Amino acid sequence: MSEDHAHEHRGFVPTRRLEAFADGIFAIAATLLILDVVASRTPLAPELLRVWPSYAAYAFTFLSIGIAWINHGTLISLVDRCDRTFLVLNLLLLTTVAFIPFPTRLLAAHLFDEDAQAAVLAYGVTLLVTSIFFNLLWFYGVLRRGLLSADADEHLVRGISRSYTPGPYLFLAAVVVAFLSPLVSAALLAAIVLFYLLEATIFARS
Amino acid sequence: MSEDHAHEHRGFVPTRRLEAFADGIFAIAATLLILDVVASRTPLAPELLRVWPSYAAYAFTFLSIGIAWINHGTLISLVDRCDRTFLVLNLLLLTTVAFIPFPTRLLAAHLFDEDAQAAVLAYGVTLLVTSIFFNLLWFYGVLRRGLLSADADEHLVRGISRSYTPGPYLFLAAVVVAFLSPLVSAALLAAIVLFYLLEATIFARS
Amino acid sequence: MSEDHAHEHRGFVPTRRLEAFADGIFAIAATLLILDVVASRTPLAPELLRVWPSYAAYAFTFLSIGIAWINHGTLISLVDRCDRTFLVLNLLLLTTVAFIPFPTRLLAAHLFDEDAQAAVLAYGVTLLVTSIFFNLLWFYGVLRRGLLSADADEHLVRGISRSYTPGPYLFLAAVVVAFLSPLVSAALLAAIVLFYLLEATIFARS
Amino acid sequence: MSEDHAHEHRGFVPTRRLEAFADGIFAIAATLLILDVVASRTPLAPELLRVWPSYAAYAFTFLSIGIAWINHGTLISLVDRCDRTFLVLNLLLLTTVAFIPFPTRLLAAHLFDEDAQAAVLAYGVTLLVTSIFFNLLWFYGVLRRGLLSADADEHLVRGISRSYTPGPYLFLAAVVVAFLSPLVSAALLAAIVLFYLLEATIFARS
Repeated sequence: MSEDHAHEHRGFVPTRRLEAFADGIFAIAATLLILDVVASRTPLAPELLRVWPSYAAYAFTFLSIGIAWINHGTLISLVDRCDRTFLVLNLLLLTTVAFIPFPTRLLAAHLFDEDAQAAVLAYGVTLLVTSIFFNLLWFYGVLRRGLLSADADEHLVRGISRSYTPGPYLFLAAVVVAFLSPLVSAALLAAIVLFYLLEATIFARS
Repeated sequence: MSEDHAHEHRGFVPTRRLEAFADGIFAIAATLLILDVVASRTPLAPELLRVWPSYAAYAFTFLSIGIAWINHGTLISLVDRCDRTFLVLNLLLLTTVAFIPFPTRLLAAHLFDEDAQAAVLAYGVTLLVTSIFFNLLWFYGVLRRGLLSADADEHLVRGISRSYTPGPYLFLAAVVVAFLSPLVSAALLAAIVLFYLLEATIFARS
Repeated sequence: MSEDHAHEHRGFVPTRRLEAFADGIFAIAATLLILDVVASRTPLAPELLRVWPSYAAYAFTFLSIGIAWINHGTLISLVDRCDRTFLVLNLLLLTTVAFIPFPTRLLAAHLFDEDAQAAVLAYGVTLLVTSIFFNLLWFYGVLRRGLLSADADEHLVRGISRSYTPGPYLFLAAVVVAFLSPLVSAALLAAIVLFYLLEATIFARS
Repeated sequence: MSEDHAHEHRGFVPTRRLEAFADGIFAIAATLLILDVVASRTPLAPELLRVWPSYAAYAFTFLSIGIAWINHGTLISLVDRCDRTFLVLNLLLLTTVAFIPFPTRLLAAHLFDEDAQAAVLAYGVTLLVTSIFFNLLWFYGVLRRGLLSADADEHLVRGISRSYTPGPYLFLAAVVVAFLSPLVSAALLAAIVLFYLLEATIFARS
């Protein structure tokens, strides 16, 4: 270990490695999505138009994972030290993030056929579980263990808490709606992700 | 977070994580290209010669992504802080970069059959959109928000602006030409990428 | 090389690159697991239930690789300098870690059919070899070469030695049991990984 | 950009990003190799024995890429600044490194059938080209442009030059031998890689 890191606590995984590992998993999970964009029939021109749901699923999920990465980056930037439980909660969050390409593939393939309900449910439940682990990681850091940096802005911490808390309820609502109408549920999921996208960009400025 | 980073702004994604995430996506998108180089028929010797377009598409696209990575590195090295909008623009750019393996696969498979036009169009439009997002990211940083470092070299900033601006028009021209002749369009695309490769190496020295 | 690193030893691979390379391989090996979660038959709803062993194998293996990553991070954080032999031992460890997705795929596909024994054996032997290389890396660093940091906590070093040593014997026992009952062997493997998960989180606190 | 990096040259890709991008590509190219280890026939037990060449190809190529990564790390640790040409030469090297999984797949599939010659040729030529680009990168840095750190150890620099120079000739010899006997050529390739492995570990100590 170079002297750069001499002041890190010996025997602890440095936060910088947690970031590198997380950055890697977010980046790979996002990039693997392209493997499921396939246009294998010919003639190619109509085929490229026919598979538009796979482009939409790709772009939508890439952006979702990207927003999750932005939120993860904000969260970790407020954390001063991470104990083993924090590492394991982070690992559970990454397990769900890296799972996202699977339901994305199902959604792109089945959004408009008779298996739409099962596909939307798989997608919605995955986002729901991801959102639950985001909350567990955040509230463990904030409330239970005092891992937050002493100079973390109170206003910002409360803002993140306020924006994370409704996540699981919103995704749960979208999952329940899937039993009535898969397409409405998919639209709700898109609206929730769009909300978090706007929240991350516009609202965060004030 | 180690004391290394104590001076970073709490509650912001550090630029170093934006770089790590971007480096990961550029690296994965480039490396995944090899999955589409396939020689599955036997006898193997003539098959290895027959699939030369997939080698060309691999090498050409790997270099294109690599040049995009060099440009991204130069751009970010001039940026002092990144707000949420910058992060989202960066995310949109990465979404298009990670999409590149898909049209590359189409191009390698169809460059010399009757689907060449559709394949070249898909490839050209992807590079066009990538080039548009590069411009949006750059000009948002430079012109709109003053995120640039105070000590950024004026000469260099003007040079980058001058080299980025024609990108979308050049790629658009190549896309239009694809309606007349896919092979000429592919040659134009290659020439544009070659121009940026030379621009990045030779012209940058002065 | 930036001045940041000016104090690193010229001509040695910096520990920070060993970490980056290892973080990349752990992250990719974990994320690639999702490629083997496949639900290709229709109707989709029963198919999603039928493939539950592939979810279990995904989650279990992702967590195993994650725990290996936590242990690797702890180990490296105690190391002050790494010689070429340490680099090569580390490389052998990474070779086995990156191999894990292959037996995972076998286990998910064959846990409940007549090939369960071969699949569990492949999985168990891979974890056994991984655990042997973890021990080689650790004891080379600690005992043979004195690469450990001078201020490494004696208590922690002894704790890690004590927790690593039984690993190969435990995995070997589980492998032997696979000849009698594949399912009992799989349960034993799960118990060993769970033990290391708890060891990494709960016991480490005291 | 955090103040950490304030002393890096504005408008240049920092060496640390070149390292991150290279680490990513080495790590991904190595980890992707596992996708080509496949055991798809049943009964599984004899199949797991039958596919042993794919294990050998996996382990051998993973170690080769790992040694290339160690050499790359040593090389970059001696470099003080990297100009655009250095970046492009590095990119060409990475293009060949990321190509390695393709001939590895061919070798594992065809080492013992009538296509062995074509497979060994593809593998050998890839290693030959990789070794040529390693030499180009190194000698551009050392001889042509004086990018080396002023305090780089003369002894070490001469040692690296001496160990790199024969690489292309050795690989070329192995490629030529493939026209006479593919298996002897494969053994020669293995011996060359083993030589570089030993050279990197044992000889480097003195």
